[in-house]
Amino acid sequence: MKIDIVSIFPEYFGPLDLSLIGRARGAGLLRVDVHDLRQWTHDVHRTVDDTPYGGGPGMVMRPEPWGQALDALVSPSSVLVVPSPAGEPFTQSTAVSLAAASHLIFACGRYEGIDQRVVDHFGGREVSLGDYVLFGGEVAVLAMVEAVARLLPGVLGNAESLVEESHTDGLLEAPVYTKPASWRAHDVPEILRSGDHGRIARWRRDRSLERTAARRPDLLARAALSARDRAALDEAGFPDTGDGVAK
Amino acid sequence: MKIDIVSIFPEYFGPLDLSLIGRARGAGLLRVDVHDLRQWTHDVHRTVDDTPYGGGPGMVMRPEPWGQALDALVSPSSVLVVPSPAGEPFTQSTAVSLAAASHLIFACGRYEGIDQRVVDHFGGREVSLGDYVLFGGEVAVLAMVEAVARLLPGVLGNAESLVEESHTDGLLEAPVYTKPASWRAHDVPEILRSGDHGRIARWRRDRSLERTAARRPDLLARAALSARDRAALDEAGFPDTGDGVAK
Repeated sequence: MKIDIVSIFPEYFGPLDLSLIGRARGAGLLRVDVHDLRQWTHDVHRTVDDTPYGGGPGMVMRPEPWGQALDALVSPSSVLVVPSPAGEPFTQSTAVSLAAASHLIFACGRYEGIDQRVVDHFGGREVSLGDYVLFGGEVAVLAMVEAVARLLPGVLGNAESLVEESHTDGLLEAPVYTKPASWRAHDVPEILRSGDHGRIARWRRDRSLERTAARRPDLLARAALSARDRAALDEAGFPDTGDGVAK
Repeated sequence: MKIDIVSIFPEYFGPLDLSLIGRARGAGLLRVDVHDLRQWTHDVHRTVDDTPYGGGPGMVMRPEPWGQALDALVSPSSVLVVPSPAGEPFTQSTAVSLAAASHLIFACGRYEGIDQRVVDHFGGREVSLGDYVLFGGEVAVLAMVEAVARLLPGVLGNAESLVEESHTDGLLEAPVYTKPASWRAHDVPEILRSGDHGRIARWRRDRSLERTAARRPDLLARAALSARDRAALDEAGFPDTGDGVAK
């Protein structure tokens, strides 16, 4: 996969040299090029922004530098992603769909955002990292690149770690424990030390169900639940109300 | 505000030297200290992880180094935040509540996560950046620190830019435009060039309503809408179904 990132803060992307992404780039599994938007400006101040039409606070990124940058980078196979708090939510399924592309271009807006005509002209996909406001698209792109890169073949050391984790089966993951068995008077749950894999699997499923019911009833309402799952939730104090939503 | 970050990749946090956060730190509005978790290990390999109790793929972060790190950092006023895909969702209101604290500690998990007893013992707040899986907590902490820092007094250059933006009034922001008025045959909407502030405000409100209805019906269902808002949505093809949810 090839990834192009355009930003006025190209030095922001140092973290992509580290850890598993750095290793994946070194192994040729992933190519990432970071471009300074200002190389497509032509005035002495290298201006990328101007005041918004219609008035209001803040500045808007001008369409010309973005147009020239994207003219240079767009390919027949590229998918343009524009992080924006007004976009569709970025979820694990967005990551899966982007991981299927061979070429991603990320356009990092700053200030009040990029002139809307750029997104309209190039057919960009506006995607929101979450319901909060950031200084700009840079940190959103770091997160999106991580979420996408770890789905690429060969990037994760242990392929199995993709299997059991939050958001792949629609429930939150159960709590995890490691040695020592007793730490500061807190003991690891006995069942996890029993060696009984059937009981361990049921214990983990029950903890996933309870956590999801307590923290994310929206996810639980969409999850595929068995009769045993519903009985476990009922016993834990999250009765099924019959409308498919445990409350 | 003081922020402590604990991670096995302290070099990940270079972006906090840049842009408005770097400036806020330089101006003394914000103090950020990044700590290498491995300084609280005592074996020759500086081990931070071990296999999970109960079996399964991946590794879990051991409680001892985290316990010693947090013993050293926790203060009477500190709030401990642990990014986790199994946490409560991080939203703009989470950012607002964290911005009211004087001392934040962020614990960055890697692998399958941190032994649950650490969070239980120190009373950590498990928070999820969104419904996707990352390599670790580092990028989530970068995003959370940005979202919190921009709410601190004096950090944003123009205080007004906090006012009109996505997620502060519960609707997505309208599209933005700047010069030139015509770019590659796309014109800025005439109304934004009219100088009629009443019409501009109504146009922006209508675009916000339409965008939110199309992309985020979940937000629209919770937004405070006037009779005029409902009429505008109806006219745009998003009729009110009477249950408070425009569909």
